[in-house]
Amino acid sequence: MRPIFLDSVSLEKAGDLLAARLDSLGIQRLPPERVRVAEAQDRITAEPVFAKYSSPFYHSAAMDGYAVRYTDTFTASETSPCLLKIGRDALYVDTGDPMPEGFNAVIMIEDANLVHDRKPPTDRTSPGDSPWDEEGSLSDCIEIYQSVPPYQHVRTIGEDIVATELIIPEGHRIRPVDMGALLAGGHLEVAVRKRPVVAVLPTGTELVDPEMLRERPPAPPEIIEYNSAVLGGMARESGAEAVCFPIVRDDPGAIREVLLRAVEKADLVLINAGSGRGSDDYTLTAIRELGEVIIHGVSIKPGKPVIIGFIRNKPVVGVPGYPVSAYLAFKLFVRPVIERFLGTASAGGERITALLARQIASPLGVDEFIRVKVGEVHDTFIATPVGRGAGLMMSLVRADGIVRIPAGSEGMRSGSEVEVELMRSRSEVRNTIVCIGSHDNTLDILSNIIKKNHPGYSLSSAHVGSLGGLMALKKGEAHLAGTHLLDERTGEYNVPFLKRLFPGRRMVLVNLVRRRQGLLVRKGNPKGIQGFKDLVRDDVMFINRQAGSGTRLLLDKHLRELNINPFMIRGYDKEEYTHMSVASAVLTGLADAGLAVFSSAQALGLDFIPVAEERYDLAIPYEFMDTEKIGIVLGVVRGNAEFRGLVQSLGGYDMGDMGKVMYEGEGGV
Amino acid sequence: MRPIFLDSVSLEKAGDLLAARLDSLGIQRLPPERVRVAEAQDRITAEPVFAKYSSPFYHSAAMDGYAVRYTDTFTASETSPCLLKIGRDALYVDTGDPMPEGFNAVIMIEDANLVHDRKPPTDRTSPGDSPWDEEGSLSDCIEIYQSVPPYQHVRTIGEDIVATELIIPEGHRIRPVDMGALLAGGHLEVAVRKRPVVAVLPTGTELVDPEMLRERPPAPPEIIEYNSAVLGGMARESGAEAVCFPIVRDDPGAIREVLLRAVEKADLVLINAGSGRGSDDYTLTAIRELGEVIIHGVSIKPGKPVIIGFIRNKPVVGVPGYPVSAYLAFKLFVRPVIERFLGTASAGGERITALLARQIASPLGVDEFIRVKVGEVHDTFIATPVGRGAGLMMSLVRADGIVRIPAGSEGMRSGSEVEVELMRSRSEVRNTIVCIGSHDNTLDILSNIIKKNHPGYSLSSAHVGSLGGLMALKKGEAHLAGTHLLDERTGEYNVPFLKRLFPGRRMVLVNLVRRRQGLLVRKGNPKGIQGFKDLVRDDVMFINRQAGSGTRLLLDKHLRELNINPFMIRGYDKEEYTHMSVASAVLTGLADAGLAVFSSAQALGLDFIPVAEERYDLAIPYEFMDTEKIGIVLGVVRGNAEFRGLVQSLGGYDMGDMGKVMYEGEGGV
Repeated sequence: MRPIFLDSVSLEKAGDLLAARLDSLGIQRLPPERVRVAEAQDRITAEPVFAKYSSPFYHSAAMDGYAVRYTDTFTASETSPCLLKIGRDALYVDTGDPMPEGFNAVIMIEDANLVHDRKPPTDRTSPGDSPWDEEGSLSDCIEIYQSVPPYQHVRTIGEDIVATELIIPEGHRIRPVDMGALLAGGHLEVAVRKRPVVAVLPTGTELVDPEMLRERPPAPPEIIEYNSAVLGGMARESGAEAVCFPIVRDDPGAIREVLLRAVEKADLVLINAGSGRGSDDYTLTAIRELGEVIIHGVSIKPGKPVIIGFIRNKPVVGVPGYPVSAYLAFKLFVRPVIERFLGTASAGGERITALLARQIASPLGVDEFIRVKVGEVHDTFIATPVGRGAGLMMSLVRADGIVRIPAGSEGMRSGSEVEVELMRSRSEVRNTIVCIGSHDNTLDILSNIIKKNHPGYSLSSAHVGSLGGLMALKKGEAHLAGTHLLDERTGEYNVPFLKRLFPGRRMVLVNLVRRRQGLLVRKGNPKGIQGFKDLVRDDVMFINRQAGSGTRLLLDKHLRELNINPFMIRGYDKEEYTHMSVASAVLTGLADAGLAVFSSAQALGLDFIPVAEERYDLAIPYEFMDTEKIGIVLGVVRGNAEFRGLVQSLGGYDMGDMGKVMYEGEGGV
Repeated sequence: MRPIFLDSVSLEKAGDLLAARLDSLGIQRLPPERVRVAEAQDRITAEPVFAKYSSPFYHSAAMDGYAVRYTDTFTASETSPCLLKIGRDALYVDTGDPMPEGFNAVIMIEDANLVHDRKPPTDRTSPGDSPWDEEGSLSDCIEIYQSVPPYQHVRTIGEDIVATELIIPEGHRIRPVDMGALLAGGHLEVAVRKRPVVAVLPTGTELVDPEMLRERPPAPPEIIEYNSAVLGGMARESGAEAVCFPIVRDDPGAIREVLLRAVEKADLVLINAGSGRGSDDYTLTAIRELGEVIIHGVSIKPGKPVIIGFIRNKPVVGVPGYPVSAYLAFKLFVRPVIERFLGTASAGGERITALLARQIASPLGVDEFIRVKVGEVHDTFIATPVGRGAGLMMSLVRADGIVRIPAGSEGMRSGSEVEVELMRSRSEVRNTIVCIGSHDNTLDILSNIIKKNHPGYSLSSAHVGSLGGLMALKKGEAHLAGTHLLDERTGEYNVPFLKRLFPGRRMVLVNLVRRRQGLLVRKGNPKGIQGFKDLVRDDVMFINRQAGSGTRLLLDKHLRELNINPFMIRGYDKEEYTHMSVASAVLTGLADAGLAVFSSAQALGLDFIPVAEERYDLAIPYEFMDTEKIGIVLGVVRGNAEFRGLVQSLGGYDMGDMGKVMYEGEGGV
């Protein structure tokens, strides 16, 4: 039942194999189609477009004023002005008016002195030259004091676009300004590349259409089918049209049948394994039976079990089932085919250089793609790895970019320079407020309110525990850190740690909340847990927080006080990184008890046995206090009523000191 | 008839006035609407979305193998393996299968040794503990050599998403990965901001709908209406829905009527002046009569005559008629209103720092927006201003970005650092091959072929004449320069100039073409021009090329040889920058003759009086010869059959030396 891999090929080899087979099958750009310019936005030109007409296509006045023949003005000077008869030698024109036939310059209205009912100058004798006619009805003239050069204040033909001139080249993505220039150049339609049709086939007996959720919650062994939405969206983003097929069960005949229908209809077919239960094999076998498989397995992580084949000259990509694998398989193997069809280049995300905040180990021989959060601290981009599992959709939602660890590397040291392909714009990354440290549920609310009230900014919080956060501040990897570290000796929160860790550096502590920590147990407390002493019972499984977190220190302090050997506690070595993960473990029966904040118990409907009230502060380097980023955070914490209301509703928080400076000073002094 | 401006306000003041009035009228975000997640791509969330269900929502096998109870494995070791009976203590599971009730770890299939038909070990006495039953039908076991920790190889509930966890915040633009996470978290629909409806009203009696072009070419005084397409496209790009109205003639009643219909239908109305002929006034008066005008005239260039008002609580923007003014008015005053409706931030284009290639003078008291081309040479971004006229649509098509010269500045020196807001992506700008120098029509073809065959790259050519191009190379502003400079003393092309201008720097000359230069005259040569001597005739108007261009040098050389005083030539002081502009001037009667290459005569159907054959080379700094950019240029020039065919079809070119290195060496030696 396990898929049999052809020899996995390297990422580079896979790309080459795919390109070579596309070449040999003659699979190139799709044929052009003509669309109206007004509907051509974001389409790709299939040929260069040259102007049919010039723009403007007639000489026109560039100013309001009088059209004149410039030769009539040769003799004009301050001392000997020149008189031009309106209606014969000077014609009033508004900006944009065609120049009257034979006229070739414009005098601005403010430079032309209107002259009425003057006597003809005595030195003018020829009646033909005189602006005064016998009737006196056309007796108005303009008087000018300066000769004008040819085509003064005239928009000449072709000033903007010369007929035959190139407007946009082939392979160009049409923007609004291009639409304007195409119409100005006389094009009503434009030849663009047909959008490739990408068929997305979800397969897997356990998969259920998300529409089902309208009626009831999902139940095991069902899996909500959401990869189609991601793959279809990515296809559209790449300029293709996506056709999502209904779910196909794991049945060789059904898979063959839908593959044939899909290759009929589409230019490119994605078949997405629903789960590992043999469906990969069915996909593989079906493509083999109907066409050929050229790649089965690529040495990448995640995404290894990708299949690439061809049926009836159409590329078929077997996309792995795990969401991150599916995402990467699309980026690496599907997008390039779409781009080939369109004749566009894979710009991909923008690439920046960042410093890695944590070391990454990675297997040799595999190109690994690590999702990272990125922030800019002290003018340096810092990349912090997030969850690496292939099944973690949220790791893609939270990531700002992707770092590739090449096959020849066993990993990267903390602090080393890495290239990040961004998933957001550089300016969004620049406007990210980086909070690394202890987790608290109020940070999610803070993040929301900031995004809502300051749409250009976002708060990114990474949960590495209080000590980890202070270390991140020290290394210049964050703008602020959430911390609730109790100094056992003095009973004081946070301050002693700042003093010890930041010698000679001025630091500020601003209180976020005081909060209640306690033991979470399932509703009704089925195991009758009363306190820490029950944790050593044989029938009690505990779930711990990671070393370095304030909550872990709190636990260890209580255990010490109670003389409980931690190694007597089952599950002491199983660590989670957030309060909510602890709560979830208790809710779902992975554990019977865990130490966490009240709001996490409230969120998941667990019972709560209070243990301590503690102070949760934001540690901020003094030099950041005047920055816009910290200003935004403090603004919300100190003055936003919605924020206070939402924190209140989480439960278990005391906001008496919220926003107050608890400490400011240098460490080590 | 001239528009009467309220006191123009500064750009900053205008923004503040607009924001304050929107605030006081309570014009904020548009209400939310619920859409299917599958259709929510690129929409903006109207509220934070929290997970309804965990994902996964049941514990499932993360590997193919056997589900076991981890407590059953405590005693396993290499020397004393543990036997688990299949069907009772070990259940086969595929990846993704729900964990059977009571089982809490998975042993990978490769770590489980299948054992058949073995005798029961003698130390096992209790039949209940034995995996061998009496019948022998369930006689298969797995043998394991190592204890397993709880939840080994189990995807636990909430591993990806914990129910109640924040998936995406409010004000977030939904990407394909977000769609996946929303569905995984149990959301079938999502609340997004309604797209604002932007009405675009073109007004102007001379305007004609581009559809008219299907029947006939435009005729004066018609103006093809293309601003609607640009404004509508920009509105869509900003996340709005655009409704383009038919053209309204310059009639106060008609304008009032359409404004009323538009404010009924839309959230924001753009009324676009067709021309200067009083229509601005009609717009102003109409908005005043129906509502109020808060801004008429902003001290920006281009774009000054912008009008901002409100009718029935709907913002109405009077967008100036010139295309660049319209573009800027949208960026500065329309996009921010759309973003307010959507609750998004104005990211705008990416901002980079570049060195200015030419000085810019700019009036005090006006914020001027200069369009620039940008290229990266020697790891430095170089910004070269392009045409500044408000009427130059093509300047927006060609530009890579915009530089703002603030009101307090009279301009910027050449070489100064400027901030550029990019209109393309940084990577597109990085992959731009910058060619500055003499103009030749083959450069357009080269640019096309490069874009087509190397979609990631583009060739940008700026036309400043041969000498200007060499100076740009010298200053590090270009990768290559087209040059055709004849040294009068030696009769040699280009080489003497390189030697003189680049002392100590190794330079390469690669021939592009040899080409015929000659006098262009209108078809049939109505003025009977035979050669340079006719240029001094009174009835002949000449059109010149700019000083520093090779063509100008060629002209001056011939005039000297013929003892013709240039100042006897009418139009000698009227300069154009390209062959095509010269050809266009002759075609449209601005001039009777000009000196240009044969292909420009052929393109516009002019007669051609040959004067000289000359060598047009590409000058390339030696250190660029091995770069990918120059490699692409040389690849096309040397080996692309389509390129040769197209150059051939332009006419007047000799390709005998095309691609050949004509010279390589240091200057000044």
